[in-house]
Amino acid sequence: MNKEYKLAIVGLGGMGNWHRETIERIENLSVCGSFDIKESRQEFARSHGLRTYGSLDEVLADPEVDIVLCSTPNDCHHDIVVKALRAGKNVVCEKPAAVCVAELEDMIRVANETGKLFVVHQNRRWDEDYLTVRKIIENKSLGEVFRIESRVHGSRGIPGDWRQEKEHGGGMILDWGVHLLDQMLMMLPGKIRKVYATVSHVTNEVVDDGFTAELTFDSGIVALVEVGTSNFINLPRWYVLGRDGTAVVEWGCKGRMVCVTDWSAKDAVPIRTAAGLTKTMAPRTDDTIRELPLPEVHSDIRDFYRNVMDTISGKAEIKVKHCEVLRVFKLMEAIAASAENGVCVNFE
Amino acid sequence: MNKEYKLAIVGLGGMGNWHRETIERIENLSVCGSFDIKESRQEFARSHGLRTYGSLDEVLADPEVDIVLCSTPNDCHHDIVVKALRAGKNVVCEKPAAVCVAELEDMIRVANETGKLFVVHQNRRWDEDYLTVRKIIENKSLGEVFRIESRVHGSRGIPGDWRQEKEHGGGMILDWGVHLLDQMLMMLPGKIRKVYATVSHVTNEVVDDGFTAELTFDSGIVALVEVGTSNFINLPRWYVLGRDGTAVVEWGCKGRMVCVTDWSAKDAVPIRTAAGLTKTMAPRTDDTIRELPLPEVHSDIRDFYRNVMDTISGKAEIKVKHCEVLRVFKLMEAIAASAENGVCVNFE
Repeated sequence: MNKEYKLAIVGLGGMGNWHRETIERIENLSVCGSFDIKESRQEFARSHGLRTYGSLDEVLADPEVDIVLCSTPNDCHHDIVVKALRAGKNVVCEKPAAVCVAELEDMIRVANETGKLFVVHQNRRWDEDYLTVRKIIENKSLGEVFRIESRVHGSRGIPGDWRQEKEHGGGMILDWGVHLLDQMLMMLPGKIRKVYATVSHVTNEVVDDGFTAELTFDSGIVALVEVGTSNFINLPRWYVLGRDGTAVVEWGCKGRMVCVTDWSAKDAVPIRTAAGLTKTMAPRTDDTIRELPLPEVHSDIRDFYRNVMDTISGKAEIKVKHCEVLRVFKLMEAIAASAENGVCVNFE
Repeated sequence: MNKEYKLAIVGLGGMGNWHRETIERIENLSVCGSFDIKESRQEFARSHGLRTYGSLDEVLADPEVDIVLCSTPNDCHHDIVVKALRAGKNVVCEKPAAVCVAELEDMIRVANETGKLFVVHQNRRWDEDYLTVRKIIENKSLGEVFRIESRVHGSRGIPGDWRQEKEHGGGMILDWGVHLLDQMLMMLPGKIRKVYATVSHVTNEVVDDGFTAELTFDSGIVALVEVGTSNFINLPRWYVLGRDGTAVVEWGCKGRMVCVTDWSAKDAVPIRTAAGLTKTMAPRTDDTIRELPLPEVHSDIRDFYRNVMDTISGKAEIKVKHCEVLRVFKLMEAIAASAENGVCVNFE
């Protein structure tokens, strides 16, 4: 029989509560209590039948607690994680794990010293739209892929909370960039040669409320990663270009894939547009292309915690690795530097 | 009564013939003959009732010819235009006017010396999709615009002719870039500070078969200009982001415009997605936004030649100016340099 693991939540905001609800559906794992500095959230915990701790120290002093979940605002992660690791706890930390590379390096150093598990909740590795794109690339459905565009567009600006504040680790590079960049780095092999980025400050002057980053890999593949919060009409979530076809994948895995079937029929008949003529841009006729269904993927976010428990018990290797998280952080700093200085940054 | 102007076509390929057909519908202008180095095109001309000249010299020696249209491959423009200007002819030249800045500067110098008209056929200034976007910006329908994306996507690679060859001025920066960049520079005020670009070589190693260029203006506006020839699903022709709304405009002026009506209703209810939760990207509800119809525009490409004739007769100023064409050429060279060297280029 597997051990029953106990997890304590530190910071029971929106995401902390998401973990609480998710863990209810995971075998061999349960939430043994929570702590939040806001009394209203302590009450919320009790109203959901959770034991509340009076302080972080009290959480860490509880020998029942196997795993501490740190789901506070970003700028508090470092101190809580370090303290929990030194107290001998395994730690799951919400993303972004820190607010800068230096903080993250320190957290990793302490994890290595203590030998305890420190893992970042890069939950969007389990997103099915992302896994669909991975499968398209792996299956070589589009031939050799030469450009991937990953965009998340919203239209509410930055929510009116700590996400607007620099000192709390706000801004879209950290908030959503950390997901989209992580997905891209997990998907594309090799080093990144060049990073160029611009940021927007439409609804917020202090932190970026959107960014566009173009990453050129050693392989020649170009990846565009973009987050926008003033986009009232969205561009597709994913746009993937291969030598032999193109795929569009949306949230919820809707989308299309169109592949060429006959390259030889290349010489187009020019088409007339209002103010001109074009041969290059003449649309293809249906006999040289075909629509393919997107591959099916299935994902279960609970596998994140199953992997955490299997790692603690020595049965598995952790899926979200320190080196991967650190690489994304270095990339986020390169993106911020590129945008701030208006230069293309050499990376790796 | 207005003078009847006579135009001779030099280079009766696809675009030369487009001019022939277009001029048939223009008052006070007629094609008096053509010359092409291919005998098959001379025959084509005769079969359409055109007089054919035996050489460029013969065209230029004909005192009947008021205007010479140069619609040859790009690398021949310079010599033909210079010769025609020196022969005292007014010259309309197909785009791109030259294959490099130096050539164009020489053509402009000769035009200034001779006092004859030298005008480039930047016909896509008359495209209604472009004029729709201009009108959206002028009307401030989206509030202050902070990002404009202009894309032309095809999926046939580069047509199998001189467009594939560097020495003939091939490649997509010159072929379509010259249009899209010209439109962008006509639309957005102020200087360009930064240029960053990548190019693709999917179907052609010698010339670029696509490019993505990001231009940062002094005003802070960022413009993305992209041409692709391996895109089997297209992204929108235009994507325009303003502080208060977004517009998508397609070829043929189909599209959408969505604007915010209530900024105050900002605090979103987080939405649950498969592998997580998002507050920032929660979609707007219909009560805080509204769909607006795209503005109507009407354009007539024949106005290009009407302006040419009015300029020759001293009644108007030429619409497509040397300084504008030269600026686009300098920008195209900056784009090529950025892509080749993997750097962000300071411009203007």
